[in-house]
Amino acid sequence: MTPGFSYEVLAKDGLARVGRLTTPRAVIETPVFMPVGTQATVKTQTPDEVAESGARLILANTYHLMLRPGAELIERLGGVQRFMAWPHALLTDSGGYQVFSLAKLRKIDDERVVFRSHIDGSKQELSPERCMQVQASLGSDIAMVLDECPPGNADRSTVEQAVARTTRWAERCLAAPTREGQARFGIVQGGSFIDLRLAHLSEIAAMPFDGIALGGFSVGEAMDVTYQVLKALGPHLPRERPHYLMGVGKPIDLLRAIGAGIDMFDCVLPTRNARNGQALTWGGRVNLKQARHREDLAPLDTACECSVCGTYCRAYLHHLVRAKEILGLRLVTQHNLFFYQALTRAARNAILEGRYAAFAREAEARMLQEDEIGSEQG
Amino acid sequence: MTPGFSYEVLAKDGLARVGRLTTPRAVIETPVFMPVGTQATVKTQTPDEVAESGARLILANTYHLMLRPGAELIERLGGVQRFMAWPHALLTDSGGYQVFSLAKLRKIDDERVVFRSHIDGSKQELSPERCMQVQASLGSDIAMVLDECPPGNADRSTVEQAVARTTRWAERCLAAPTREGQARFGIVQGGSFIDLRLAHLSEIAAMPFDGIALGGFSVGEAMDVTYQVLKALGPHLPRERPHYLMGVGKPIDLLRAIGAGIDMFDCVLPTRNARNGQALTWGGRVNLKQARHREDLAPLDTACECSVCGTYCRAYLHHLVRAKEILGLRLVTQHNLFFYQALTRAARNAILEGRYAAFAREAEARMLQEDEIGSEQG
Repeated sequence: MTPGFSYEVLAKDGLARVGRLTTPRAVIETPVFMPVGTQATVKTQTPDEVAESGARLILANTYHLMLRPGAELIERLGGVQRFMAWPHALLTDSGGYQVFSLAKLRKIDDERVVFRSHIDGSKQELSPERCMQVQASLGSDIAMVLDECPPGNADRSTVEQAVARTTRWAERCLAAPTREGQARFGIVQGGSFIDLRLAHLSEIAAMPFDGIALGGFSVGEAMDVTYQVLKALGPHLPRERPHYLMGVGKPIDLLRAIGAGIDMFDCVLPTRNARNGQALTWGGRVNLKQARHREDLAPLDTACECSVCGTYCRAYLHHLVRAKEILGLRLVTQHNLFFYQALTRAARNAILEGRYAAFAREAEARMLQEDEIGSEQG
Repeated sequence: MTPGFSYEVLAKDGLARVGRLTTPRAVIETPVFMPVGTQATVKTQTPDEVAESGARLILANTYHLMLRPGAELIERLGGVQRFMAWPHALLTDSGGYQVFSLAKLRKIDDERVVFRSHIDGSKQELSPERCMQVQASLGSDIAMVLDECPPGNADRSTVEQAVARTTRWAERCLAAPTREGQARFGIVQGGSFIDLRLAHLSEIAAMPFDGIALGGFSVGEAMDVTYQVLKALGPHLPRERPHYLMGVGKPIDLLRAIGAGIDMFDCVLPTRNARNGQALTWGGRVNLKQARHREDLAPLDTACECSVCGTYCRAYLHHLVRAKEILGLRLVTQHNLFFYQALTRAARNAILEGRYAAFAREAEARMLQEDEIGSEQG
C-alpha cells in the first residue's frame, strides 16, 4: 500500500460493504460517489458547494487538463487542488477513456497512443509512463493506470487484445515513478465476457495496486449486461481493497452495484442531466422543463434536505430552466450532487444496520414513481 | 410620499449626497448601485451571493417578466421577491425601454404601445395603466412610470414629442391604482437638449412622485454629452427626493454622476461584462481572456475583499474563462457586483468626510492603469 493511503472495511451486509478510505487529504466513507470535475471544476459549482453536498473526493480528467491548461503548468501552480481551491481529495483518471471517445486520429500500439487534441488539433501522446507523469504533475491523491477501453459492441478477439495490453500497461504504470503519497488503482477490462473479466480481475488483483477499478462499462452496452457481469465479479473482488466502478451511473445503478460489492463511483450524470433541466430525487427523475411545474410552489423533493429544496419552489426552477438562466443549471446541479451524497449515505446506514437489500428494493420502487408522471405528461 | 417609503439626505459634499432610502423591505444607503435581475435572477448569482456583495436593492425587468412567466402568475406565486427568494428590496422598470430595444413591430400612440413579444411573437400592449397594474402584480417596492425613450440620435422635434407624451403618461400612472406601499418614480426625458431636460425636470418634479429618474441615457449618445446634461440638471434636482440615473454605467460614470448629485444607479455592465470575461477592479478593467494571466497566482484585485479575490488566482479564472466554464462567469460576476458595492460604499464615506472630489479624481486615475496594460497586450 502507498504510504498515507489506506482502506478498511467497517461492515458487510451480503456483498455490500461500508469502508473507510484514507488519503493524505481526506477520510472518506464508502460507498462513495465522486462528482466529476472535468476541467478542474465541478461544472457550475464552487468547491464550497461541492463540499456542502457532503463530497470529500472528486474526479478530474487527465485528458482535458493535459490539453488545457497543461499538466506542467498546473504543477507549477501547485497542483489541481490548489489551482481550483479544492482542499479535499482528488482522483485523476488516466485519460485513456477520453482519448478513445473525444480525440481525433488516434493511433495505438503497444508502446503508446498518439492522438490529436480535440481543442486545437495538436499532436499528443499517452504512454503508461507519460500517463503516470502527467498525473504526478496534477498531484491527485489517487492515479489510475492507462488502459485500453474497447467499445461496448467489440468482438471477443478485440476485447482479448485490449485486456492483454491493459495488463502490460498496468505493469509499466507500476514500474513508473510516482508522486509521493499518490495511490494507484489498476483497471479490469474484459467487456461483457464474464470469463475474460474474471481472468483479468485475477491478473490485476495480483499486482500491488491500492484499489481495483472496473473499466469499460457505460460504453454503449445494456445496463442488464453490466449487472450480470457485476454479479459474477462481485464475490471475487479482493476484500481488503476498494472496488471502483468507473463512469456509472444512474441512482438505481448505484443501488444495484453497491449490492454487488462496489465501493466507489463517478459519473457525469448528476451534473450533465442538471444542465438539461433534469433533477434526480428520491421520487425519481423530475424534468423541470415540463409545464406541470409552472405554478408548483412545492420544492423539487420534499424528502431532500439540500439548500435548494429548502429555498426555491419548482415554479421558479421551471422558470429558470425555461428562460435558460445559469442559476437554474447551478441549482439543479447543486441538488443533484446533494442527492447522490444522500443516496450513498443512506446506503451506508442501511448496510451498517444489516438491511441493505430491503433498503435498495424500496428506494428503487420509489424512484420509479415520478418517472411515470414524467412520461405521462412529458 | 407613499406610506412605508421615505428618503432622507444625511450629508452633502458639493452636489454629491449621502442619503437613506427606506422601503417596506430594506433600508438602503445612497449612492446605491442596483444589480440587474432581468428575469427574476441576477444572472449566474444566488440571492445570497447578491446580498453578500452588499446589495439590498435590485432591479427586475417588467418587460421580460410580463412575457415570461407572466405578471399574473408571479402574483399568484407571491410576487417577484418570494418567487426568486430575494428577501430585500426590489425596483421594477416600466418595460418601456425594452419595448423600444427588443420587441418587434411596435406601434405607439397616445393611448398605448402595442408590440410583439421577442420570445414567441405574441401580441402585447403596455399603457400607463397596464404598466402600473403589471408592476403591482410583480409586487416591487418601487415602480417606474411608463415613458417614451427615443434613440440617442433623435432630432429635437422627436424628443419634444416623447417628452410631452411622457408627461401625459406620468399623470395617468399617478392616477392608476397601485399596490399598497409601492413607491412610484417619475422619469425625465429630453435627450441631449439641455433646455428640454430642464423644462421636463420641472414638470416631473412638480408631480407627487417618490423619486425622480433621468431616463434616455445610455442609448447611443457619447458619455461626454451625458456628463454635460448631468452637470446642467444636477443643481435643479429636487433636494428631498432620490435621484436615479437609469441604465448607467461604467465605474467612472458612477463616480462622475455621483458628483453631479445622482443617488441611484442600475446597469447590466458588471454582470454582462463578467460573462465576457471582463472584471472591473480598483485598478481598471481586467480582460481575463488575455494570456498574461495564464500563470498569475495573484488575485484579480489585491485591493478587493470579496471571497473570489480571497480564494482564487488569476491563472484559474483565466483557465475557467478560456474553457468556457460556468464557474468562471459566476466568479467574475460575483467579484464585479462586490466591486460596485465597494465603489459606492467608498463614495459614501468620501462624501461623509467631505473629500468626494479628491476621492473621485484619484479613483478614476487608478482605474485607467490596468486598462492601459490591457490595451498594450490585448
